[in-house]
Amino acid sequence: MTDLRARALEALAAQTIELPSWAFGNSGTRFKVFGQPGVARDPFEKLEDAAQVHRYTGVAPRVSLHIPWDLVEDYGKLAAHAADLGVQIGGINSNLFQDDDYRLGSLTHPDQRVRAKAIAHHAQCVEVMRQTGSTALKLWLPDGTNYPGQDDLRARQDRLADSLQQIYALLDPEHRLLIEYKFFEPYFYAMDIPDWGTSLLHCLALGERAQVVLDTGHHAPGTNIEFIVMQLLRAGRLGAFDFNSRNYADDDLIVGSADPFQLFRIMNEIVAADALRPDSGVNFMLDQCHNIEPKIPGQIRSVQNVQEATAKALLVDREALREAQRSGDVLAANGVLMDAYNTDVRPLLAELRESKGLEPDPYAAYARSGYQERIARERVGGQQAGWGA
Amino acid sequence: MTDLRARALEALAAQTIELPSWAFGNSGTRFKVFGQPGVARDPFEKLEDAAQVHRYTGVAPRVSLHIPWDLVEDYGKLAAHAADLGVQIGGINSNLFQDDDYRLGSLTHPDQRVRAKAIAHHAQCVEVMRQTGSTALKLWLPDGTNYPGQDDLRARQDRLADSLQQIYALLDPEHRLLIEYKFFEPYFYAMDIPDWGTSLLHCLALGERAQVVLDTGHHAPGTNIEFIVMQLLRAGRLGAFDFNSRNYADDDLIVGSADPFQLFRIMNEIVAADALRPDSGVNFMLDQCHNIEPKIPGQIRSVQNVQEATAKALLVDREALREAQRSGDVLAANGVLMDAYNTDVRPLLAELRESKGLEPDPYAAYARSGYQERIARERVGGQQAGWGA
Amino acid sequence: MTDLRARALEALAAQTIELPSWAFGNSGTRFKVFGQPGVARDPFEKLEDAAQVHRYTGVAPRVSLHIPWDLVEDYGKLAAHAADLGVQIGGINSNLFQDDDYRLGSLTHPDQRVRAKAIAHHAQCVEVMRQTGSTALKLWLPDGTNYPGQDDLRARQDRLADSLQQIYALLDPEHRLLIEYKFFEPYFYAMDIPDWGTSLLHCLALGERAQVVLDTGHHAPGTNIEFIVMQLLRAGRLGAFDFNSRNYADDDLIVGSADPFQLFRIMNEIVAADALRPDSGVNFMLDQCHNIEPKIPGQIRSVQNVQEATAKALLVDREALREAQRSGDVLAANGVLMDAYNTDVRPLLAELRESKGLEPDPYAAYARSGYQERIARERVGGQQAGWGA
Amino acid sequence: MTDLRARALEALAAQTIELPSWAFGNSGTRFKVFGQPGVARDPFEKLEDAAQVHRYTGVAPRVSLHIPWDLVEDYGKLAAHAADLGVQIGGINSNLFQDDDYRLGSLTHPDQRVRAKAIAHHAQCVEVMRQTGSTALKLWLPDGTNYPGQDDLRARQDRLADSLQQIYALLDPEHRLLIEYKFFEPYFYAMDIPDWGTSLLHCLALGERAQVVLDTGHHAPGTNIEFIVMQLLRAGRLGAFDFNSRNYADDDLIVGSADPFQLFRIMNEIVAADALRPDSGVNFMLDQCHNIEPKIPGQIRSVQNVQEATAKALLVDREALREAQRSGDVLAANGVLMDAYNTDVRPLLAELRESKGLEPDPYAAYARSGYQERIARERVGGQQAGWGA
Repeated sequence: MTDLRARALEALAAQTIELPSWAFGNSGTRFKVFGQPGVARDPFEKLEDAAQVHRYTGVAPRVSLHIPWDLVEDYGKLAAHAADLGVQIGGINSNLFQDDDYRLGSLTHPDQRVRAKAIAHHAQCVEVMRQTGSTALKLWLPDGTNYPGQDDLRARQDRLADSLQQIYALLDPEHRLLIEYKFFEPYFYAMDIPDWGTSLLHCLALGERAQVVLDTGHHAPGTNIEFIVMQLLRAGRLGAFDFNSRNYADDDLIVGSADPFQLFRIMNEIVAADALRPDSGVNFMLDQCHNIEPKIPGQIRSVQNVQEATAKALLVDREALREAQRSGDVLAANGVLMDAYNTDVRPLLAELRESKGLEPDPYAAYARSGYQERIARERVGGQQAGWGA
Repeated sequence: MTDLRARALEALAAQTIELPSWAFGNSGTRFKVFGQPGVARDPFEKLEDAAQVHRYTGVAPRVSLHIPWDLVEDYGKLAAHAADLGVQIGGINSNLFQDDDYRLGSLTHPDQRVRAKAIAHHAQCVEVMRQTGSTALKLWLPDGTNYPGQDDLRARQDRLADSLQQIYALLDPEHRLLIEYKFFEPYFYAMDIPDWGTSLLHCLALGERAQVVLDTGHHAPGTNIEFIVMQLLRAGRLGAFDFNSRNYADDDLIVGSADPFQLFRIMNEIVAADALRPDSGVNFMLDQCHNIEPKIPGQIRSVQNVQEATAKALLVDREALREAQRSGDVLAANGVLMDAYNTDVRPLLAELRESKGLEPDPYAAYARSGYQERIARERVGGQQAGWGA
Repeated sequence: MTDLRARALEALAAQTIELPSWAFGNSGTRFKVFGQPGVARDPFEKLEDAAQVHRYTGVAPRVSLHIPWDLVEDYGKLAAHAADLGVQIGGINSNLFQDDDYRLGSLTHPDQRVRAKAIAHHAQCVEVMRQTGSTALKLWLPDGTNYPGQDDLRARQDRLADSLQQIYALLDPEHRLLIEYKFFEPYFYAMDIPDWGTSLLHCLALGERAQVVLDTGHHAPGTNIEFIVMQLLRAGRLGAFDFNSRNYADDDLIVGSADPFQLFRIMNEIVAADALRPDSGVNFMLDQCHNIEPKIPGQIRSVQNVQEATAKALLVDREALREAQRSGDVLAANGVLMDAYNTDVRPLLAELRESKGLEPDPYAAYARSGYQERIARERVGGQQAGWGA
Repeated sequence: MTDLRARALEALAAQTIELPSWAFGNSGTRFKVFGQPGVARDPFEKLEDAAQVHRYTGVAPRVSLHIPWDLVEDYGKLAAHAADLGVQIGGINSNLFQDDDYRLGSLTHPDQRVRAKAIAHHAQCVEVMRQTGSTALKLWLPDGTNYPGQDDLRARQDRLADSLQQIYALLDPEHRLLIEYKFFEPYFYAMDIPDWGTSLLHCLALGERAQVVLDTGHHAPGTNIEFIVMQLLRAGRLGAFDFNSRNYADDDLIVGSADPFQLFRIMNEIVAADALRPDSGVNFMLDQCHNIEPKIPGQIRSVQNVQEATAKALLVDREALREAQRSGDVLAANGVLMDAYNTDVRPLLAELRESKGLEPDPYAAYARSGYQERIARERVGGQQAGWGA
């Protein structure tokens, strides 16, 4: 156990979690976006907020950008700003859902002009990658149809394959293309990449640097997500997570808040496959909306939840587990897993933080820091960032 | 069969369907609202569009209003405008989800000031009812919580019961309070009225003029909706439908487009309980979003779908059905229902329309009318109506 | 915190959990029942096995019977056997699903003869109650239909109401009627009591001694079960739990194994409403199938899971929670709950057991006891108990 | 339209549907199997019953066998019996769920001895294929786990891949291996082939003669099945359907009874991809349980439902559809599909049958034939076939 604990600490010390810039802007439902005082108004302020999360947790050194929400004139300046704050630019996310031309699709659109526009947008994103040193282009395809017959499902796949090929060709050798899937929304009859199988088929057709993004909120009810994690790892194609929680649809709640045991089981597959290692190629990202809770504390809590699930997964006694599995002892094997899950890992994580010179409780430390009050006071005027801009 | 057909025609001639004013404004997902040329810019124009639906279908003589989206200075003038157009004002819908104060709830909010504000809004709605002659106050409670522990679930019920009591007390004797339930959204952990049971419990506590609204899109996956229809009819508390279609969440697609057989089964329970009669107290309303399809044709198609499902339900040979049920002949009983469902009722409905002096195909007739082109041309400037205003 | 801990220990010391006799017989899926060595062959042996669970956990002093699976000649003898073993007979469960006459229903059957037979079966159950001192008659209605139109949904409700009235009339004044609901299975179109609303409506019609049974596995995907717990407590009609776990259908897995956080949230509503008290009228029962795991250890693990969830719920700092809720601090309120959930309560429960003179780890203590080996050796010949007998 | 009708008749004349032998034996839920008079007692009688379905529908010339349920001494004799009856043996289904050794898995079992046994069973099945002339080996893997940690998910995939490789090696060049997937049941935490993606990955690893079986009842709630049909056709790996209906779990109801529109959409993808052709390699099979309805009429109804859905799909005006899709007219495109769906195709199918010298209504013709009464009278003694034997 001592040994497990020591190895857990070591692995936790190397873990990193990527933050999404858009978590620091406003978000909401189709019914209402509730603003909050102090919300960032531009990409520079979003990076400042993200840096707070890293400052107190010590494990969130990267920030994903979203184009065009994070368009700036000078990406060198933005990257330098990040570096000054102790963080760096992570993946670059394209946007295929906010142009009026995309009403009936983007990369799958029947009209070649619209597809060309959507592809060209990725050339712009690749340019941002070059200027910021990012190596991951993340593509969520929001395309789909609302009514049976609205479009030809297969023709859309063919057009998609062609569009992806063109995007893949834009990449530099050190770039990866990460393709996300989603069960439904913003379309409600058929999404064009609704499941991991479809995403994987496209990745296989593209080449080795195309990988699947697993957003934990993008599955049908009852789907065993850790099974998919295992399967994508086995296929060598798990590129990244988009972490969040869901009870119903794509609720985008704080990761681990709806079902902490599921998050543990996911991290357990990661640890079992030795995919936590920084060089494993799996990017652990958050992708959430803080509709009613404050954004920076929400991200800190999320990072803590991922850390806690990881710590528990690292404490699984794998030798005992294998032995129980080998002997067909169903309850004992499950018991080994539950023993780790039932462990209170907060002291272990406090120890980890203190070993890094951080406060043991990042949530409390941030609350005490006065940062929230300061931004609420100082960020007056201008327009708060959100999905609309 | 001839007899069934004749009686079906008679019942169909008396059927009415209520349209929602908001179906004629723009709507979308949290990701994007796609505008459309010619969309109405104010309640008067919405009524004009709604009147087109009635003009071509002959069965949509009422329009629900939504406050504040349909706020006008002079409701007498609005009602007169409706009358000129051959329609009238239907139910009045309150709005509890777009005020910044409602971030943590409205009628359930911990703060008595916020609750009072939400209750007062209903006094305003009742005033609109008086001025427009509307007799139904429709209340969808969007309140809920996103995280376990966020608020006390039971205390919220108690506050809700108290708020509803106050609203009920505002009503005139000829007014009804219609209380809607919804499985999830805009909150994602617990809605405060998530199911028909909760809605019914509150109605029972309030009194006889409180009734349940069944929105066909507001249920958990797999829920047998026609069973709930039957149950609410049996309890004498089915006040209204909000018709639309869903495959996943509250997709708000054209009613009957996702599962036409379900719509038939629902209407079959209505017909079986003799609740299609205009004096049955059940208001058949549409509540949909036309995100990507044109609005007036979308409403026409929706009305047609309800009519077709109704026609099929009216063609069920109830004597044969009862006989097969009585004898325990599972396949024969199901077969009686399917015979009606498999009937092509479009000729019957064409006959109905022609008997009323209408064109047999309302969708085509509207398309030919030039109205769509005219509003696209004439409604220039101003702001298109939508959920935000 | 010390205070909370002390009060938690006190409440835990008074907690009891009822075991189902059928958990000690064989069970399986429609595809296969896997037998296990040593499985009980009659109700007396089932009680012996159940008594082992109580012996090691100290909180499982009652055993539910199922008629006819637990039919014996002399119930006085069975009750005395139970007393000798340190346990007693709990609720009596009727069986409405294994007679050839029930193919199309039991209490809802179109044929009055079949209904009378099903009602008469409950007279037999009430007789067992009298002879065993049981005060709870538990009724799960397995009735339903497989095809639309197969039978008249409303007529079935009417016949059900009539049948229940007759059963209720059979009860002695100290008896309660507990009515369970189930989303689906064994019928797949419409169950006749599919949800808590339907169960509650029938209870309200019957009288005060009719209450709802909440089986944690009997809901649609995504249903917020703790909300229903709260609602039934608020209505004063939560009679009992049937605890188990589900991921998909009515999986009947070990309670707390699929979603331990859900079990905690359920117990949190119980504790918040002060319904853990032995005199609260809520019976906490297990209802599970151990298809592939050993039965006695499976029940011990289940009891432990309920205890752990209860302990965590008792450790919620309710004052801090209320304060955070009052101030609208979403993350702080959720944090109070999570602090309790993240606590490792196994030491607390070990302390509880030791204070009762029990071994700290009941699962290990049972494993060491040699009982399992003994029954495997001794229970040779005869027919193992199961659902079929 | 005339043209469409003529082509539809032609395609329908060539359509065939395969029947499962087990549909003519008893089946039920885990709670109860209700027997029926006249049920077949051995494979020969099952073929006689199946031949009745073909006799009246004219489109069901093949019968799938299930080993060991259909074990006979002399398969030459069975095949000859089939030929005499005007039908032939279709696919051979293996059974991996009814041996006591398979409690923890078959092809994935940790114990190499159990895996070898399960593989050897397929050698037996291949032998039956050779003796009956069957060319399709259908494998449904019922393996899975009930509890997290029970076994290593990835190790199970590795063992599965190895087992499948060995089975694939057993096949003759003209044989195909059809691999089915299933969301859940008989295990309730993780199935080892839960989705089409997993099935396809294994097929891709095996070779060209490995293809996916799509059982319409084996998906998560809300899954768009026609999308999967399209995707598997696009990948060239759709080997067969197992047709049935579901509302909740794997309900195994009559295909088309729960959602006839879904069946139409599935057949629409088939027709759109020109995969209805007899040489397309897609085997259209039924896989259902007639728990409460009579078996032969249940199969006749099922065949009719598939025919009706196919007829409607063939009536889709594909030119008009493509034109509406090309122009982005959402409602018009959907309308083209709905026009076909709303058509009453029963007259067309009556015409088809009459052109083949069959009665227009096969259900009624069978009922009049007296066969059902005869088998009820004559099949006395012996044991009715079922899943257990």
